Amino acid sequence: MEKKIALLGMGTVGSGVLNILKENKDLLLNSTDELLTITHILVSDLNKTRTVDLSGIQVTDNIEDIKNAEIDLVVEVMGGLQDTKTHLLYFLEQGIPVVSANKDMLAEYIDELEHTALNNKTTILYEGAVAGGIPIIHSLTHSLNANRISKVMGILNGTTNFMLTQMADKGLEYEDVLKIAQDMGYAEADPSADVLGLDAARKTLLLARLAFKKRFKMSDLDVIGIDKVDKIDIVHGKKANMTLKLLGVVEDKSSSYHLSVAPIFVDNTHQLSNVKNEKNAVFVEGNAIGQAMFYGPGAGSYETASAVVSDMINTFNLSSKKTILPEEFGEVDQSKEQSDYYFRFSDSIESVKEVLKDYEYKLIDETDKVFIVKSISSKVYEDIQEELQVKASYQVIGAGQDGVAGTN
Amino acid sequence: MEKKIALLGMGTVGSGVLNILKENKDLLLNSTDELLTITHILVSDLNKTRTVDLSGIQVTDNIEDIKNAEIDLVVEVMGGLQDTKTHLLYFLEQGIPVVSANKDMLAEYIDELEHTALNNKTTILYEGAVAGGIPIIHSLTHSLNANRISKVMGILNGTTNFMLTQMADKGLEYEDVLKIAQDMGYAEADPSADVLGLDAARKTLLLARLAFKKRFKMSDLDVIGIDKVDKIDIVHGKKANMTLKLLGVVEDKSSSYHLSVAPIFVDNTHQLSNVKNEKNAVFVEGNAIGQAMFYGPGAGSYETASAVVSDMINTFNLSSKKTILPEEFGEVDQSKEQSDYYFRFSDSIESVKEVLKDYEYKLIDETDKVFIVKSISSKVYEDIQEELQVKASYQVIGAGQDGVAGTN
Repeated sequence: MEKKIALLGMGTVGSGVLNILKENKDLLLNSTDELLTITHILVSDLNKTRTVDLSGIQVTDNIEDIKNAEIDLVVEVMGGLQDTKTHLLYFLEQGIPVVSANKDMLAEYIDELEHTALNNKTTILYEGAVAGGIPIIHSLTHSLNANRISKVMGILNGTTNFMLTQMADKGLEYEDVLKIAQDMGYAEADPSADVLGLDAARKTLLLARLAFKKRFKMSDLDVIGIDKVDKIDIVHGKKANMTLKLLGVVEDKSSSYHLSVAPIFVDNTHQLSNVKNEKNAVFVEGNAIGQAMFYGPGAGSYETASAVVSDMINTFNLSSKKTILPEEFGEVDQSKEQSDYYFRFSDSIESVKEVLKDYEYKLIDETDKVFIVKSISSKVYEDIQEELQVKASYQVIGAGQDGVAGTN
Repeated sequence: MEKKIALLGMGTVGSGVLNILKENKDLLLNSTDELLTITHILVSDLNKTRTVDLSGIQVTDNIEDIKNAEIDLVVEVMGGLQDTKTHLLYFLEQGIPVVSANKDMLAEYIDELEHTALNNKTTILYEGAVAGGIPIIHSLTHSLNANRISKVMGILNGTTNFMLTQMADKGLEYEDVLKIAQDMGYAEADPSADVLGLDAARKTLLLARLAFKKRFKMSDLDVIGIDKVDKIDIVHGKKANMTLKLLGVVEDKSSSYHLSVAPIFVDNTHQLSNVKNEKNAVFVEGNAIGQAMFYGPGAGSYETASAVVSDMINTFNLSSKKTILPEEFGEVDQSKEQSDYYFRFSDSIESVKEVLKDYEYKLIDETDKVFIVKSISSKVYEDIQEELQVKASYQVIGAGQDGVAGTN
């Protein structure tokens, strides 16, 4: 049967969707019995030259043309916030299913959209919104569903992971690597959403919601970007067998939840340490599976479209008897658990040692006064910040803690 | 609603299933609206002392008791081949869904079982049969379904991965590490199925079938175990920044398929190289997603039960409108693509160099006459084996080939 699909947006991901539908047409038809046909495309500029063949498709810059058409599915890859949400609500209210990869919008409106979908006996799927092609949304929903999830930790932004990898591997400074990322098209002219950690934060919020079945607000997250990262700390980290990664972390601390995005030093025996450049990975901890990790492309035209097209197939081919939507807001507590911390101080080495004398620590570099202080609480972490002049500090996720193969 | 479930088998995985159903009862009930209740358990020895609470459950050693009972689902974790299959066929013929983690049986009878399920409008799910808790079966079926899969490559046997890791990290000989694995309960008294690569081969076959939607026979696989692996090669590999891994590999070579299990040297920049001890990982290549990897526990009571219980939930909660069963057998061609190879020779270094003079090679060790020969065909590989005395040889999966982050 033919399914008539409206594609809202014709950027990188939109083109990928069109290309996959074309290149894998036989395979998709074979596996679904549905002929997934793009009948309408919404674009912002009708005069733009397109490299993709659009014959037979009604291309419009007016959403009303699509609202008035007979459509079986809406695929939203155009970005935008409130207006986009309003359009999608309209379709859901008509009982038309939606697939979206718009993480900015979803982080804000996912609850409203999913409720509207459920009330109108239809669905909204969004695998492409988090970690590109990696099927983490579907896996949390349908494959790790026997687990009480205690932690999700991910490299969720390819741009910043590319930048941190280049700083580590090539010894480049932040400004130089930002320029390279911009030249290569990984970073926008205004890179704030990436480098300040906001993009990762939105994906982190979506993961927390699925993992814990609670609602969260963006303001629930502690967000630190990579814009203050100094090459020197990456170099010292390397000496201590650690790699700096921008991690979205969500944890169930039994009575409350911890949600954050921050650059964190990861021990080189940890699976996440080896996730390089624009790749993404999501590490999950559950009470049945223990620890698992999903690795793959965090962005890209075909790569993200792999997730979007999968959602399109599953919209027609897979149905859940029960959908649970989180109703309550999760209680958030930002205080961190006991952890190791990396510090670079500007005080004299003697005064640092004097303050740290009650704690277990390892001196990494005498000249730059770099220390790793072991197993300290949030309180002690703050005390140290007060008593000494800290030039840089990062949490350290240690060997043998997570991601390290069980035995030995 | 209560779902009455018969558990066939009460070993490691069976106990895990019971424990998860108990410990995550509220969570499971909440996410499915179904009360998953084990009403019957089939055991081989009624007199064995059990550590799990079995009150309210009918424990029997007679399958007829279960055939005569009113059952909504059969979960098979007891092992066995033809008899087990016969029982499962019986249930499927009654329209009763089945979940199985019995890879030995499934590798042989999956086609027959799935056809019977389909003909009787029911399902057989088997996530627990491949790579323990890692949701690779579900992901290939429902998350990577927009992709034409070209390659699947996995560390699918925890016992041999544990052994190879210990040989590499502790410099132990094969015999010593086998004994350790047996003492730790990782390896059976008769370790053949693991060390000869048969267990990995069965899982490899199941993955090939899903990836390529073709049928395969066990005889289609080239299988080499780890029983001939010498510590010395692992040591030399280490010097060349490579790690020896027992890999199940299936490849679509457009006109035919290649299926094999063999110890292969993996470059240390490859994601698979860092999968240690009893952990498993599956690396997938598709024409949309590019490359992705799924990492997690390959065995274990709770870990495998994570997959089994997920299948139990999905049996009731998730339905596919279309199920495609492979009908045709895939044509298999065992000749390998051009690749790098590791060799250790017993001939004089001069005669080795004379034979290798037309090829690009790297001398790894002069004394032990260890070479890596670059990009040679199967034909050249065999020629070298004929002209020289080869003490050991392994395929090498190189840096920049797979699993290495794109850019750079």
